[in-house]
Amino acid sequence: MLPDPIKKFADVFSKLPGIGPRQALRLAFYLSSEERALMQEISFATDSMSRVKICSLCFYPHTNTDKLCAICESPARLKNIIAIVEKATDLMSLEKTKRFKGHYLVLGDLGKSGVMETEQKLRLETLKNYISKELGGKAEEIILAINPTAYGDLNASMLQKELAPHTNKLTRLGRGIPTGGEIEFADEETLSAAILGRI
Amino acid sequence: MLPDPIKKFADVFSKLPGIGPRQALRLAFYLSSEERALMQEISFATDSMSRVKICSLCFYPHTNTDKLCAICESPARLKNIIAIVEKATDLMSLEKTKRFKGHYLVLGDLGKSGVMETEQKLRLETLKNYISKELGGKAEEIILAINPTAYGDLNASMLQKELAPHTNKLTRLGRGIPTGGEIEFADEETLSAAILGRI
Repeated sequence: MLPDPIKKFADVFSKLPGIGPRQALRLAFYLSSEERALMQEISFATDSMSRVKICSLCFYPHTNTDKLCAICESPARLKNIIAIVEKATDLMSLEKTKRFKGHYLVLGDLGKSGVMETEQKLRLETLKNYISKELGGKAEEIILAINPTAYGDLNASMLQKELAPHTNKLTRLGRGIPTGGEIEFADEETLSAAILGRI
Repeated sequence: MLPDPIKKFADVFSKLPGIGPRQALRLAFYLSSEERALMQEISFATDSMSRVKICSLCFYPHTNTDKLCAICESPARLKNIIAIVEKATDLMSLEKTKRFKGHYLVLGDLGKSGVMETEQKLRLETLKNYISKELGGKAEEIILAINPTAYGDLNASMLQKELAPHTNKLTRLGRGIPTGGEIEFADEETLSAAILGRI
């Protein structure tokens, strides 16, 4: 009853994070019957994704002809300050602030286990090698730009142990009341952090 | 900062129903950096969707060489009983029961306005033409297999007016307590329907 390409499409799409089998099937039907033009666009957009490479230094995706991304190539960026982020979208968010002039390492989602996957260990090794070869053994500062959640704290302390020998300073992002937020609605932990880190 | 193919992919995907711009961007990054193999699968699955055709009679997607889908072609199905569904997935659900031996018309999502779109009017015309040419002017029964919601009721009454001259009988799906459900938790409307439609 279910046409083969629709089944295949739904199967593949339900492997994506955040997309369930029902939604995937609805999408497949939607595209097959109501939106043929959109189907073409998806086909095209998907094919051009093969042009994306991963920076061999920071692991952010890019389309440069070079092996490195624009940030890693830029002579204007400070080489000895490195922010470690989990996701590429976190890097984007930090870049939008225009307040960070250093380099990055995109580590990949650290999850909830407090242990790194093989790929993540490899990326951390790449950073350590870079520090030892290009920065004379120690970075000036490594910022663990990891979410201030319970699991984030766990992962950050794991990274702290890994990286302490390779940097002079290890920091995390400041905590406090978000701009636009109200003291009344801030939880105790946030408010404690805001008092301790007052500006 | 955002590589072009990733931006394009995210833009296209955020046009899909139920996928927001943030999720689309996360998906694009996920595919570009962590799941290159899955990327290939998506590319392949998307391309093969072009093989899907829409049945010219019931508008269910299929991959037959013929213009008609397997149901419309089958001599075993009753030609003069037609179930009207909104979504292809609704047709699938009804087929799984194996209790319906008639034909279908997939009308497309009727929405909340109580008015049909051009494409939906066209599909209804196809049905009316079929009834007048193949069934001698009147179907035996048309089942409005539309959700028993407030909007569904509105759409059903709109379809009732359209189809009354073309069929001997117009029905909707039975209402009552779902199998496995408990009387205690059934709402008043459902329970009323269950009393009136007792078996």
